[in-house]
Amino acid sequence: MRNFALALFFICMQQQLNAETIIGFSEEGSLYQKQIETDYDRSLNALEMDKWMKYLSKEPHHVGSLAGKENAEYIAQLFESWGFDVEIEEYYVLIPTPMIRELSLISPTTYKATLTEDSLVEDPSTFVRENLLPPYNAFSIDGKVEGELVFVNYGMPQDYEILDRYGIDVKGKIAIAKYGKSWRGIKPKLAGEKGAIATIIYSDPADDGYGMGDVYPKGPFKNDSAVQRGSVMDMPTYPGDVLTPGIGATKTAERLSFEEATTITKIPVLPISYRDALPLLSAMGGPAVPKEWRGGLPITYHLGPGPAKVKLNLKFNWQTTTAYNVIAKLNGSLYPDEWVIRGNHHDGWNHGAADPISGMVALLAEAKSVAKLAKSGKRPARTIIYAAWDAEEVGLIGSTEWAEEHADELKEHVVAYLNTDGNSRGFVNIGGSHVLERFFNQIIEEVRDPLMDISLKERKRADLKLNNNSAQKRKDAEKRSDIRINPLGSGSDYTPFLQHLGISSANISFGGEARDGSYHTLYDTYEHYTTWRDPNLIYGVSLAQVAGRATLRLANSERLPFEFKGFADNIDLYIGELEELADSMRVDTKDKNSMIIDGTYTAALDPTKTISPPTIKDSVPYFNFSPLKNALAELKESATNFETVGQINKKSTKELNNLLYTVERLMIRDEGLPKREWYKHYIYAPGFYTGYGVKTIPAVREAIEEREYDQVEKQIMLSAEVIENITARIDVIVELLK
Amino acid sequence: MRNFALALFFICMQQQLNAETIIGFSEEGSLYQKQIETDYDRSLNALEMDKWMKYLSKEPHHVGSLAGKENAEYIAQLFESWGFDVEIEEYYVLIPTPMIRELSLISPTTYKATLTEDSLVEDPSTFVRENLLPPYNAFSIDGKVEGELVFVNYGMPQDYEILDRYGIDVKGKIAIAKYGKSWRGIKPKLAGEKGAIATIIYSDPADDGYGMGDVYPKGPFKNDSAVQRGSVMDMPTYPGDVLTPGIGATKTAERLSFEEATTITKIPVLPISYRDALPLLSAMGGPAVPKEWRGGLPITYHLGPGPAKVKLNLKFNWQTTTAYNVIAKLNGSLYPDEWVIRGNHHDGWNHGAADPISGMVALLAEAKSVAKLAKSGKRPARTIIYAAWDAEEVGLIGSTEWAEEHADELKEHVVAYLNTDGNSRGFVNIGGSHVLERFFNQIIEEVRDPLMDISLKERKRADLKLNNNSAQKRKDAEKRSDIRINPLGSGSDYTPFLQHLGISSANISFGGEARDGSYHTLYDTYEHYTTWRDPNLIYGVSLAQVAGRATLRLANSERLPFEFKGFADNIDLYIGELEELADSMRVDTKDKNSMIIDGTYTAALDPTKTISPPTIKDSVPYFNFSPLKNALAELKESATNFETVGQINKKSTKELNNLLYTVERLMIRDEGLPKREWYKHYIYAPGFYTGYGVKTIPAVREAIEEREYDQVEKQIMLSAEVIENITARIDVIVELLK
Repeated sequence: MRNFALALFFICMQQQLNAETIIGFSEEGSLYQKQIETDYDRSLNALEMDKWMKYLSKEPHHVGSLAGKENAEYIAQLFESWGFDVEIEEYYVLIPTPMIRELSLISPTTYKATLTEDSLVEDPSTFVRENLLPPYNAFSIDGKVEGELVFVNYGMPQDYEILDRYGIDVKGKIAIAKYGKSWRGIKPKLAGEKGAIATIIYSDPADDGYGMGDVYPKGPFKNDSAVQRGSVMDMPTYPGDVLTPGIGATKTAERLSFEEATTITKIPVLPISYRDALPLLSAMGGPAVPKEWRGGLPITYHLGPGPAKVKLNLKFNWQTTTAYNVIAKLNGSLYPDEWVIRGNHHDGWNHGAADPISGMVALLAEAKSVAKLAKSGKRPARTIIYAAWDAEEVGLIGSTEWAEEHADELKEHVVAYLNTDGNSRGFVNIGGSHVLERFFNQIIEEVRDPLMDISLKERKRADLKLNNNSAQKRKDAEKRSDIRINPLGSGSDYTPFLQHLGISSANISFGGEARDGSYHTLYDTYEHYTTWRDPNLIYGVSLAQVAGRATLRLANSERLPFEFKGFADNIDLYIGELEELADSMRVDTKDKNSMIIDGTYTAALDPTKTISPPTIKDSVPYFNFSPLKNALAELKESATNFETVGQINKKSTKELNNLLYTVERLMIRDEGLPKREWYKHYIYAPGFYTGYGVKTIPAVREAIEEREYDQVEKQIMLSAEVIENITARIDVIVELLK
Repeated sequence: MRNFALALFFICMQQQLNAETIIGFSEEGSLYQKQIETDYDRSLNALEMDKWMKYLSKEPHHVGSLAGKENAEYIAQLFESWGFDVEIEEYYVLIPTPMIRELSLISPTTYKATLTEDSLVEDPSTFVRENLLPPYNAFSIDGKVEGELVFVNYGMPQDYEILDRYGIDVKGKIAIAKYGKSWRGIKPKLAGEKGAIATIIYSDPADDGYGMGDVYPKGPFKNDSAVQRGSVMDMPTYPGDVLTPGIGATKTAERLSFEEATTITKIPVLPISYRDALPLLSAMGGPAVPKEWRGGLPITYHLGPGPAKVKLNLKFNWQTTTAYNVIAKLNGSLYPDEWVIRGNHHDGWNHGAADPISGMVALLAEAKSVAKLAKSGKRPARTIIYAAWDAEEVGLIGSTEWAEEHADELKEHVVAYLNTDGNSRGFVNIGGSHVLERFFNQIIEEVRDPLMDISLKERKRADLKLNNNSAQKRKDAEKRSDIRINPLGSGSDYTPFLQHLGISSANISFGGEARDGSYHTLYDTYEHYTTWRDPNLIYGVSLAQVAGRATLRLANSERLPFEFKGFADNIDLYIGELEELADSMRVDTKDKNSMIIDGTYTAALDPTKTISPPTIKDSVPYFNFSPLKNALAELKESATNFETVGQINKKSTKELNNLLYTVERLMIRDEGLPKREWYKHYIYAPGFYTGYGVKTIPAVREAIEEREYDQVEKQIMLSAEVIENITARIDVIVELLK
């Protein structure tokens, strides 16, 4: 009965919310905005989106390709035809494309890797191979090496700890790693740090092939020839053009030399299919891998080193290439100096129907509908900029260069950046700045799921309650009225806006019901997408509904819809996690150390095998978290004060709105994060050793995780200062509102 | 430091124990017994054990085979040559052997299953095929059927709940199940109850093949032709001859008709290799299996039903067959009427080097050494009976018939039954009656690991601390001074003694470091065993040391070494588990039901797939556990009293010892457990729907698990009564000792 009562409570609450005004709007403003949104929805046209998708994904359209340029021009023309001021902004960036890709097993048996993906009669697009980028990892350095293989599982730090226990290292060897768990670029980065001379990455069928479901074309998953391309640029250090960190790669920009570009890998790296991996892995010897490392190939996996020995030869054409960002502007009727940016990249690895066109066509539908509203006299109050970025796949280059070049004006004018990328079918996913958590919750309370008669929020809550692996998230879903939006790490074009410039950002997508293996393969085609991902682009329309509402509400709200109670609650969660992390590492380190010392590990080991106990680690001291906790206590109080005075009233001024949208700016520190000054956000960052995955309060978290204990309290002070500044700002806002 | 202190504590305790007297012995008796054990150890000869193993496993020696009879005679001669009174006791039991085994895929593709295991040049024994039993499941009924396949995962009750959610049932279909998780006989039992017309069981390579490690002969695991044979007799109802439940299958015994034998399966069942399973599974359609159901074959697994359709034809020769139990007796010098029985079966599925010969040769070594002691004037005080059972593999038949025939005298005379079966390498495993927990702990504190300079107990503790999946067991290993011995379910010859007659029993083995796939295959050979399991039978000697000490101490102790504090502590654990089980089922049922009702399940489901929410279950009421808890409180008090007065003194009388060794008899109730009167033990039983796996306080536990709520409190009363009777007995003993 408890849950039933809870459900009733949510239903009542929701009804109340529907009757409520929209956050940031007066009652009348709310009613008018809802009319606008009804008109807006009416113009969204799935058939047209489908047509655009078919057109934009007809050929490979990566940065530097002819089709890429044509797509940019096509998109620009569309924007122009709808009445936007359009510019194509060009950047001149270093892009590697493959010249030589050779991989052979030379001992104890021989095999020459095919390194190609099969064309399939069921999918005509897979025969369109002109300008096709073959499987490679962009920003792998050139190299010709020969060496024994070592199997490194997913190539994460903890995997090397296990190898250490077997007495196996990768020095002078070639690491073969499974795709997955960490962002791909971490694999060669770590392998290189450990002394490997090259890295091979393959998609294991257990994770990304027949183990997951039927393979393409019978099902959506990777067939045995499919290879995931992808950038291995060291994006957690800085994304964008490798030669122009921090500045726009204009024609005249001052550039680093090739040798100075630290984000190019130190060792060559090549992605392969599981068909090509099988002979290599089959030829390996050494101990069988630990249970958790096993994959889905019909063999016993071995750690090596060797006897399998391979020869790898990679050579790239390092060419300055033009990236075309399409920037379409609709000036605001009331506050033209306050900008809402809505972006999606247009370049794909190949046909790129899902990634990025499925998000791009939603953006186009949004822009067309907004333009129609504008023409009908409902021009948004603030300026809206639609951006179609180039060169995202190779390293967020188009968006990063643009954000770097225009840094000052963006910091001044931008209210928020809203990103999409590949879309799919299922549950809504929103990641972003928590000052917008309540704002997005209200939107997903109102937008209905296209296939079920419930709101997106209800479906999402059900998914979190039933399908989430994290007990915390399941509990939240049950108890917390707002769905937590996810903090953002990296992986798409929001990164320069959020983490470099401190612009409140969000990333929106649907997914969870159409997992597939087309990502970055030849098979990411129109046929694949419309068969397996989102037939008839039903959820493409939902995406346009959510992202469009977010854009329009940010553009039209009287007072900008930022809010701090949800933000404070998330900060509370992160600080709790940090304390727990330190505590559990302390206990774990102590327990393990004592079991190493007292001989438990030795006693439990098989004396006939070669595995050793782990090595002793420095014990984890207690840290003073009180600066963060005191800062949090004050933040919570101020957030509550803001809520108390926060009803819409006459005091919504330009000054107030500016104070609101620049709260996120206070989350960045000019000196940046330790070891990577480009990343300046002290609440959200991608992990230095995990890649896309987010680290919240990253300076503190990574100091603990990487056992740099002498850094922890310094970073606690700096992060607490950031929170204190936010609190001080909220207090100013509250004073203004009183 | 805490753990270090704990380690020190254990070391001190151990030293104290070494100085201590042996449980059940006076100080002088202890010293003398230790001398005896030194002599005993000296006679154990690994080379001789190896020779016996080679001889006894040279040919297939299943019940009814010529080699089986010869092995029995060989063992009898050995015993005789050492001075035992030997009898070969014969039983006339119904044994099926295969006449027709045919399995074909007939649609949509065709494949004829080979149903044979490959001979390997690396293992000469695999060419010895005369009298070889081909892969089959004994006590499958005959049948010729044709039907579509349904994949049922491991064929457990919860698997059928998942299939229900997909709207798939097995009615009129053929269930194909993976070996593992449950005892094999449960699979056709449940499939039959659900309406399947046959069951196919195969060994999935992820669980029992290349997924686990290199396959035979390169490594120890199942190659693609290997098949696990095994009985599918419904042993959780009653083991032993299917026609003579409860009585010895002597020539003149009154027998059931074939039709009345409820332990023969209702539907035909056949085990196959993963080589034969692959074409069948590849031909299946329907939804892809849930993530947790995936196996290690290089395909996407599907649930069916069909389109794969198979034809199965099984016909067996149901023949009355003679089983030969070898019974070797050494009369006790002081208490010839008090018997210690030490048994191991001698029949194997084929060569059976590991199962059962590796245990059998330890028993032989023990018997020879004890006989030598007797000849040198150190004849044990009590009678020792060594038993080599026949027909264990097909259903614990030899031991069960003997125990049934001799029930009355065994109940009167037997102090304890000590069992071994297949042995391996690694950590000591002791399962059994908890009145012997402290007794066995003392033994494993004294016997050293043969490869490391620590006691068996220290190694076992390290293994439990580091490698055990259960948090409870890891905690116990850290905090509890005695290692918990495991409660016994079924799976070897202790069952009739423990669970039918209420004789305190134990099962001893080593393992954990040499997992392999030879179990019940053609590859369970001398070559396999001595290469991969226990080369040079090093742990075979350890087994003889532990089992021999247990036998000799039970035979020589002044006061029998039963103890109740450990027993009470384990009962405490079980009662806690029962309460937790009811509580967690209650919460889980309530949560699931409310999420079904409030639409959460529906909302979280993919509307394009055919899976439905689970069905609503009756809510779980609160039960009155107080009778068990009151009984436990009294038991604990009496156990403490026993410990207080329990020092060895002059009062060790025959009466006292009899009261001690018949405490276990009080754990059985004549009416037996619900639905299976043969099983009479109210503390330990194999699971009715899990097979070998133990259920403690089974009448209560299974009533809760099977949601027979109206039975729970009745069973609590009956089980509490059993505990009360034990307490009353302990009180009598305490009075005697005062």
